Amino acid sequence: MTNIPYKIYLSEDEIPKVWYNMKAVMKEKPDGFLNPATLKPCTAEELNQVFVSDLVEQELNTTDRYIAIPEGIRDFYKMFRPSPLVRAYCLERELDTPAEIYYKFEGTNTSGSHKLNSSAAQVYYAKKQGLTHLTTETGAGQWGTALSMACAYYHVDLTVYMVKVSVQQKPYRKSVMETYGAKVIPSPSDNTAVGRRLQAENPGTGGSLGCAISEAIETSMTTENCRYVLGSVLDHVILHQTIIGQETKAALDKYNITPDIVIGCIGGGSNFGGLIAPYMGDRIEGKNNIQFIGIEPASCPSLTRGKYAYDFGDTGRTTPLMKMYTLGSGFIPSSNHAGGLRFHGMSPIISKLYHDGYIEARSVEQTKVFEAATMFARSEGTLPAPESAHALHGAIEEALKCKETGEKKTIVFGLTGTGYFDLTAYESYNNGTMTDYIPTDKDLEKGFASLPKTE
Amino acid sequence: MTNIPYKIYLSEDEIPKVWYNMKAVMKEKPDGFLNPATLKPCTAEELNQVFVSDLVEQELNTTDRYIAIPEGIRDFYKMFRPSPLVRAYCLERELDTPAEIYYKFEGTNTSGSHKLNSSAAQVYYAKKQGLTHLTTETGAGQWGTALSMACAYYHVDLTVYMVKVSVQQKPYRKSVMETYGAKVIPSPSDNTAVGRRLQAENPGTGGSLGCAISEAIETSMTTENCRYVLGSVLDHVILHQTIIGQETKAALDKYNITPDIVIGCIGGGSNFGGLIAPYMGDRIEGKNNIQFIGIEPASCPSLTRGKYAYDFGDTGRTTPLMKMYTLGSGFIPSSNHAGGLRFHGMSPIISKLYHDGYIEARSVEQTKVFEAATMFARSEGTLPAPESAHALHGAIEEALKCKETGEKKTIVFGLTGTGYFDLTAYESYNNGTMTDYIPTDKDLEKGFASLPKTE
Repeated sequence: MTNIPYKIYLSEDEIPKVWYNMKAVMKEKPDGFLNPATLKPCTAEELNQVFVSDLVEQELNTTDRYIAIPEGIRDFYKMFRPSPLVRAYCLERELDTPAEIYYKFEGTNTSGSHKLNSSAAQVYYAKKQGLTHLTTETGAGQWGTALSMACAYYHVDLTVYMVKVSVQQKPYRKSVMETYGAKVIPSPSDNTAVGRRLQAENPGTGGSLGCAISEAIETSMTTENCRYVLGSVLDHVILHQTIIGQETKAALDKYNITPDIVIGCIGGGSNFGGLIAPYMGDRIEGKNNIQFIGIEPASCPSLTRGKYAYDFGDTGRTTPLMKMYTLGSGFIPSSNHAGGLRFHGMSPIISKLYHDGYIEARSVEQTKVFEAATMFARSEGTLPAPESAHALHGAIEEALKCKETGEKKTIVFGLTGTGYFDLTAYESYNNGTMTDYIPTDKDLEKGFASLPKTE
Repeated sequence: MTNIPYKIYLSEDEIPKVWYNMKAVMKEKPDGFLNPATLKPCTAEELNQVFVSDLVEQELNTTDRYIAIPEGIRDFYKMFRPSPLVRAYCLERELDTPAEIYYKFEGTNTSGSHKLNSSAAQVYYAKKQGLTHLTTETGAGQWGTALSMACAYYHVDLTVYMVKVSVQQKPYRKSVMETYGAKVIPSPSDNTAVGRRLQAENPGTGGSLGCAISEAIETSMTTENCRYVLGSVLDHVILHQTIIGQETKAALDKYNITPDIVIGCIGGGSNFGGLIAPYMGDRIEGKNNIQFIGIEPASCPSLTRGKYAYDFGDTGRTTPLMKMYTLGSGFIPSSNHAGGLRFHGMSPIISKLYHDGYIEARSVEQTKVFEAATMFARSEGTLPAPESAHALHGAIEEALKCKETGEKKTIVFGLTGTGYFDLTAYESYNNGTMTDYIPTDKDLEKGFASLPKTE
């Protein structure tokens, strides 16, 4: 055993004071948003109608490598950051591998995930703009919880449209958000024109994320001093999540360690983008040769089997068009898929980096994910979120390769959150009723058919 | 704002290497166990039949102030300790108080509470003794989860008897324990003679903690290489929990801070005893003048309204007799009480210190507890366990007194865990259906009538 402690903490003074904007370093920039009606590039003015202005500015910034984190956000970060970078000694022993494994654990705050990094920033800028109200959608509830916490901290009102079937399946998530003062409305609702229309067309519907997005956007447009915010995919969300990578690099730099492999789970791409950012910047500039691996569910394989094309961000087809790897906004993951990572597309930044060969992508079936999660819980103590366990599975796979070859690689992965709200899925794994589903090519063709024509 | 960081972390090297045995410092020792059949003091030989030998030795040790924490336990502690000592800047601002408030937060591990401090130690000693199997009972599931995690770590088999009605109300707790490899049996069961008898006598019963204890003890007696372990009340459990106080003192000593007030919630007494230990030792020796306050639920007021007498530890009346403040083993808290802190008695050490005037005790109604919990969640971010929010309520009360008097006292309280599994209670508070109940003197008389005759 070396002299590396189990957990590397930064002191409060060492928490990074800047986010890392990968776009400033990328040789080719990702293609920008298109207005779906005109197929012309979206202007900042158009985006400002819906989004918080400072966030639009960050979204469009392709020149500044470092963006200062305002003191008002850093004070909030101090409540739940730095997050621990853990040396997985017990997992290494369990695997009997020469590899050295580290994980950056974002689950020690009450939202239970990394989402708080971006919600803190988004609400801060909304408050700064004089807004008094925000709207958003949430599916499983991780983002809604993180946003509720930030709105409580900055004293901003919040309305969350939560997919109706999720409210029924995860009532506790609703209770948490309400404890933090948010107004949680099962979607579709009678509050909005789109909600009323959808209910008339589909009596008894349990709702969808696409519909909840549409209701949240409509409410933001019809409420005074209000904007719509969201928790993944967009460039400014990745920017806020780079606090993860910035801390990871600062902690490892103290011990002169540069990883050989960095692994994250990918759904919308924000945690993976945040984790790899400073290392990716160095890689692009030829300063390291790190292998970056994104792991996605086999049931929703946007990078490994999707198309690189312009597509809507929502199933309701109301957002600007984004150039990304996508299964088509009409693609719906099979209902036996547990947990998040269900988005049909992928962050434009991650998509571009993958397209240009900087990132590898792999997919994995969920029973294998829960097998890894259970082994991890028993050896390292922490119960991982199913999403995070995708990254863990990738790390184990690489560590076992090292065992075969005898190589002593340094592997870093992102453990984005805890599994407290996913115990129904753990139970189905424990009692052997969990199943896998890999979409057929025909399934995928249906999703691709929903892609908009942009030429 | 001073230069104290939001969170004071100890480095791995600074984690204390010894537990603090308050009994070695107490001028008068607590009275020992009695055998209920003979009313003679229990011998170590008798206790060794049921309990792990090293734990019995710790239980009876009244001479060594410091007891070394074996390396095998310290390695486990490194996975989830040190826990953060948090300066509650945001709560102070919310209360507009000159007081300086700190809380020791034990909820960052997956069990979500301080219970892991003792389960780690207990399973380590069981393994050292060559035992291959342990049994325990659990009600709400906090202790069962912590013990499951420790048994997974040390590779010891575990059978948990979980009160049947709790299994139905908190199925997720069962899933967590099973994920860590424990066998969870709803109690009463057909596995034991006592379980079969109880079911025959009370068809359809939902069980009780008393019955689950009896089944766990019976199973430990009839299984090879097996002992029974439990998670509160006993002196050796408090000893293990002194890691909380040892770390708190080490962290504050770095900044030359001695608290004026230390506050904890009290059910069985182990977290409070663990938090105060080193400070209480100094107080007994005249080295400080700290005010120690234990906060209990008004619905189960063992210190504030109980009798100091010999009583059984379980409702099944099978344990040795302990001298403690008790409401009588026949006392059952009203069913509207949410969360833990339901034990009819109190740790013999805490009872003795209270009896001798070293500790104050207060009781509080649960709606006030949840009011404090909600305010804390919104200002400090973390969602507290209802148990922990009793201590929080006491801290707020003292901070508001400082606001009136202008005194700048230093208040430390124990935030023992998180509220992830208590959201049903939060929901009833949020929607205004939560009620309070304070037992009448007549209610208490019924409990006192169950006290055994010991003269």
